[in-house]
Amino acid sequence: MPTVTATPAKASQIDTKLILPFINSVKSVLKMMLGVETKIERPRVKSVPGTEYDYSGIISFSGNIVGTVVLSCKKDTAIKLVERFAGSEVPPDTSDFADALGELTNMITGAAKKDLGAAASISVPTVIMGKGHMVARPSDVPCLVIPCVTELGEFAVEISIKTV
Amino acid sequence: MPTVTATPAKASQIDTKLILPFINSVKSVLKMMLGVETKIERPRVKSVPGTEYDYSGIISFSGNIVGTVVLSCKKDTAIKLVERFAGSEVPPDTSDFADALGELTNMITGAAKKDLGAAASISVPTVIMGKGHMVARPSDVPCLVIPCVTELGEFAVEISIKTV
Repeated sequence: MPTVTATPAKASQIDTKLILPFINSVKSVLKMMLGVETKIERPRVKSVPGTEYDYSGIISFSGNIVGTVVLSCKKDTAIKLVERFAGSEVPPDTSDFADALGELTNMITGAAKKDLGAAASISVPTVIMGKGHMVARPSDVPCLVIPCVTELGEFAVEISIKTV
Repeated sequence: MPTVTATPAKASQIDTKLILPFINSVKSVLKMMLGVETKIERPRVKSVPGTEYDYSGIISFSGNIVGTVVLSCKKDTAIKLVERFAGSEVPPDTSDFADALGELTNMITGAAKKDLGAAASISVPTVIMGKGHMVARPSDVPCLVIPCVTELGEFAVEISIKTV
């Protein structure tokens, strides 16, 4: 019988040097690819899997940096982000919609990775589509939620990475 | 404006040598950790993000093997799997529940990785909790769904990896 209860992560375990590249990459990718300004709200530590989203793009790090980065939003926002990104309307819950949201997640994470300057690699994106789902990481890995506000709607970038 | 339409993957692109280790690891981990036999049904290629699940444990590969492995199931099955795994009832939609399902995904993927014999590393698990969500991968990466049947219910292992 395995032990499944992990020690909850503390805010102090989060390395702020790992966070800034993502704030910069979100702002620059959305400005460059979608032509929108992004206002970053106060980041908060996620301790329980509480927030509900309709769409999540997930990318994992490995190498010198391990963990996961998730771009999550409600359906309305996802539809607007994807439409602006693809240049035309894309029906939600299709492969094309998932590809677009995954590629947006990939661009944000890829730009941040360059900035991190570490010998890390990132995975292909996985996209979750489903009204009101929650994203949980192992509770011993700290997770910082960065709320982002744009004219297309609000979304969150959840960063749960550490250097090894 | 980026191109977001990828070429759909074909069944012939799936390397069966990459699949067998997962079939073996599912059977052995469930036998060893949960004491249940697993019947493997006929695998099928997933071309569109069609199947709906309530819980998904996601792990990414990087290194010589890249891609994603997802353990997905309905709520009833997830509750039974986690209860048997943890040795006692665990309330769903909690951190402990996610940790348990993530650890089960990790054990299955870790055992398969050893069998694959490749210089690959696997990420920490991400767990999605939400009724009727769909999991989508980039549509140019082939994905094989392995349906698994046990006395605790049915679940699926979705394998979307390739050697590089």
